[in-house]
Amino acid sequence: MILHVKHNLMKVSFFITLFLTIMTTTVCSAGNTDDIVLNKPNLNRGKSIMAALSQRHSSREFSSNDLSHADLSDLLWAANGVNREDGKRTAPSAMNLQEITIYAFMKDGVYKYDFENHLLEFIKEGDHRKLVQGEQEYTTTSPLLLLYVGDTSKLSKFGGQSLVIAALDAGIVSQNVNLFCASEGLANVPRISMDVDALKTLLSLSQYDIPLMNNAIGYNK
Amino acid sequence: MILHVKHNLMKVSFFITLFLTIMTTTVCSAGNTDDIVLNKPNLNRGKSIMAALSQRHSSREFSSNDLSHADLSDLLWAANGVNREDGKRTAPSAMNLQEITIYAFMKDGVYKYDFENHLLEFIKEGDHRKLVQGEQEYTTTSPLLLLYVGDTSKLSKFGGQSLVIAALDAGIVSQNVNLFCASEGLANVPRISMDVDALKTLLSLSQYDIPLMNNAIGYNK
Repeated sequence: MILHVKHNLMKVSFFITLFLTIMTTTVCSAGNTDDIVLNKPNLNRGKSIMAALSQRHSSREFSSNDLSHADLSDLLWAANGVNREDGKRTAPSAMNLQEITIYAFMKDGVYKYDFENHLLEFIKEGDHRKLVQGEQEYTTTSPLLLLYVGDTSKLSKFGGQSLVIAALDAGIVSQNVNLFCASEGLANVPRISMDVDALKTLLSLSQYDIPLMNNAIGYNK
Repeated sequence: MILHVKHNLMKVSFFITLFLTIMTTTVCSAGNTDDIVLNKPNLNRGKSIMAALSQRHSSREFSSNDLSHADLSDLLWAANGVNREDGKRTAPSAMNLQEITIYAFMKDGVYKYDFENHLLEFIKEGDHRKLVQGEQEYTTTSPLLLLYVGDTSKLSKFGGQSLVIAALDAGIVSQNVNLFCASEGLANVPRISMDVDALKTLLSLSQYDIPLMNNAIGYNK
């Protein structure tokens, strides 16, 4: 009798699991609209800094495969993650004003890097990579583009120099990406070409938020 | 007889060596006005890229000791040395226009980094670090300041964007320096404060050459 109940419970449990699996698959195929929680950075990985510098180069041929979760996680942290308890970052910024925001463009949507929680916050559904790709066709196969937007309103104390200072700080973030990719053998190219007006509309940016630079990233073809 | 001649020759040789040593010392104390030939980069040194990123921070307290020749050599190469046979560099630049020049300010003079020959070309005698230090007193003890000047005339095809693009590229060079210093435990801070007009005069810069950023560097106090 007890065994019979147990057997029936197992059957019920099996069908619930099957139902949930089907539902999850359906939701996923409709596009991921969730935040992506990133792994804690693996501080033991990577070539030496001098080896990474010696292998730093731009590469314009990408496999269409998405980055693994581990690579995506460490890449974002390398780019501009928090590296100290006081909230300071891998990329310095003018007077620590931290005015650079990173947006990640992938096949299924656009995400904003939430450095405090080390996750990719879902922003827009759909494939909007073309806006970052601009007119350079080679980037169409890159599964990931990281866009660096400078909030010049945070730099208002620098007056007319605010845009130049945001650009200095965006370059710094981009070189973190270049060196991580050089170390890990990822194909990568830093770029200034993009559709700035369309990006400002898509991301609902203010007049002070300036798309400055981007990196097209993927595995080697 | 043969032994006697040999002994006299040794005595003559000793006095010639002594004379040359005294002369060299005198010349050096009058200030070095020669180029500084740098060591071939040591590509085996350094922490991993993730470890360097985790230790990247600004430090404003410096020992007044000069950098060793080995550290100076590897630092300049890391900043923007040639890392490939085709002449490309550790720091990417817009359309590979390589518009950033590095000037090294030290106690005895000012030097320009000749990336093709990996040497510091002597430019100006004397201690001109104060012009790069600007109004921030803490930098007065840093034995080395690296200044990044962008030649916007090389970026004329970008029109009104040329200054912003030079700034992106200067930030990239600066982050190479930040990460090398983080890896090697050097005290270092990236800065935008400096006496731009005085620097343009000292270095005989054209209207298109823009001092964009600098790093104050030394050993920890």
